[in-house]
Amino acid sequence: MATPAILALSGGVGGARLCTGLADVLPPEALHIACNVADDFRHLGLTICPDIDTVLYNLSGRNDPAQGWGLAGESWQVLEALAELDAPTWFRLGDRDLATHLFRAGRLADGASLSTVTAELAERLGIGARLYPVTEQPLATRVDTDDGELPFQEYFVRRQCQPRVRGFRFAGLEAARLQPQLAALARPGALDAVIICPSNPFVSVDPILLVEDFWQRLRDTGAPVAAISPIIGGRAVKGPAGKMLAELNLPVTALGVAQWYATRYPGLVSVFALDEEDAALAAEVENLGMRALVVPTWMRSREDKQVLARACLDGLR
Amino acid sequence: MATPAILALSGGVGGARLCTGLADVLPPEALHIACNVADDFRHLGLTICPDIDTVLYNLSGRNDPAQGWGLAGESWQVLEALAELDAPTWFRLGDRDLATHLFRAGRLADGASLSTVTAELAERLGIGARLYPVTEQPLATRVDTDDGELPFQEYFVRRQCQPRVRGFRFAGLEAARLQPQLAALARPGALDAVIICPSNPFVSVDPILLVEDFWQRLRDTGAPVAAISPIIGGRAVKGPAGKMLAELNLPVTALGVAQWYATRYPGLVSVFALDEEDAALAAEVENLGMRALVVPTWMRSREDKQVLARACLDGLR
Repeated sequence: MATPAILALSGGVGGARLCTGLADVLPPEALHIACNVADDFRHLGLTICPDIDTVLYNLSGRNDPAQGWGLAGESWQVLEALAELDAPTWFRLGDRDLATHLFRAGRLADGASLSTVTAELAERLGIGARLYPVTEQPLATRVDTDDGELPFQEYFVRRQCQPRVRGFRFAGLEAARLQPQLAALARPGALDAVIICPSNPFVSVDPILLVEDFWQRLRDTGAPVAAISPIIGGRAVKGPAGKMLAELNLPVTALGVAQWYATRYPGLVSVFALDEEDAALAAEVENLGMRALVVPTWMRSREDKQVLARACLDGLR
Repeated sequence: MATPAILALSGGVGGARLCTGLADVLPPEALHIACNVADDFRHLGLTICPDIDTVLYNLSGRNDPAQGWGLAGESWQVLEALAELDAPTWFRLGDRDLATHLFRAGRLADGASLSTVTAELAERLGIGARLYPVTEQPLATRVDTDDGELPFQEYFVRRQCQPRVRGFRFAGLEAARLQPQLAALARPGALDAVIICPSNPFVSVDPILLVEDFWQRLRDTGAPVAAISPIIGGRAVKGPAGKMLAELNLPVTALGVAQWYATRYPGLVSVFALDEEDAALAAEVENLGMRALVVPTWMRSREDKQVLARACLDGLR
């Protein structure tokens, strides 16, 4: 039997956790990961790719399990020295994390593409799965809020998601081309399954699915597509997805997420995974034309991640 | 009496030491420092300015007195993490030093000029003297060696000055414009004195004096010019100046340095300071048309720096 090809679409923390589970239960060469780049930004002259790095750190077992982002055992010498210079410190750059950004900055300055640098980092960190930025072109989430339009990191880190959200825009979307290896995977017969990780639908998954109508290409492959709810029992496991659902007048439940995908990407998602705590919503999810998969979706331990990964893969058979 | 205006031309360690002495004995607004930028280079996406930073660190009392470059009490977390990524570590970037480079990278990315960033760093480090890069344009020392032409840091750090030197070239010199505040100082009546610090004549002082014929402009101001020998008793206090003199078939003495300046910049240097250890060379120095100033030039303590600074200023009266 040929190696299966599974494509995971991932943002940061939740996506990275499920990718870790998928990497544990799949042969290394089977797992392809399309990473969100719309929260990438330039800071202190560096190109920072928070979602790619969170996936890299999780897959290599170097992530800080407590805070979700960054590296375990991090130190903060550079940040302290930046503070002494009155330089911006609102984005918390750890010393070891900085090495990743500097490696990337050096390679990008050499002329390497973001795809190449991402592959090099994955290889140096001993990761077998393939990671791709969804696009090589600049793509930047702008958050439309009651305080005006904000760059994503300004909203997310500096303003701590306080401003009320009215919508999102992805600057650069028209010009962004799908990363070539992802474009090759989005052809009939190339993929066995697609997994939309439990990432933020608005600021992690949308800016992946919208690049060159990636979602239509994936739907047209005929490969089954599972999406996992990032909302459990009316709350996001991590991040502002719950607050955003409420501010966009959507139900702050797994059903709200399922509705968003069903409306925005008709015919794409075939299986929708929601937590056992939300089993009562399964019938309404199925009314949207998706098969509901009720499984434990809260990933705390490594085993949790593997269990959810296996459940999704089995549910897509 | 109006505030005097003293211009020091400085490379790295030796220059930074004398600048510290000058800053101690002059009113803060009197001291202007033109820094060499021809050993600046791009590394890991950052613009590294070793001589400017050495002067900044010395003037703010943050320098590592033992090794001459870098900061006291430095840590190396980022460098260790870079090593784990198999990233280049031949240029030893300390954590606190990195904060300077990141601050600069961020401001340059904002569109600030190198002059502006240098002034900002000086101000944030509490330095009263004015520091200027000799030019805003790219200027890069290329070392012609028996192993071919090498970029300066490749020769200096990576190859540890091992290859035999045949000459030097300053890439970008034709297009480089003198930094505007330095151009304004190099006008008759603007300067009371010029001090060529005990820096390497070939790779620190030449790429300052050659920018837009800075040396002719300075000579034509009529201000007295002192040069201090970086060679004491046949050896450079720090760095490859001695090795370079030998490989260029010049005497490896203070006299060799005096000959270099007298030949290359006729009529520029009025006073040449050499160490008491080299007092026997004073007559030959004077034969070159310079007044010889025999003073203690080895700067170990803060007091040594002040004594040499005062001796030079007094010698120029």
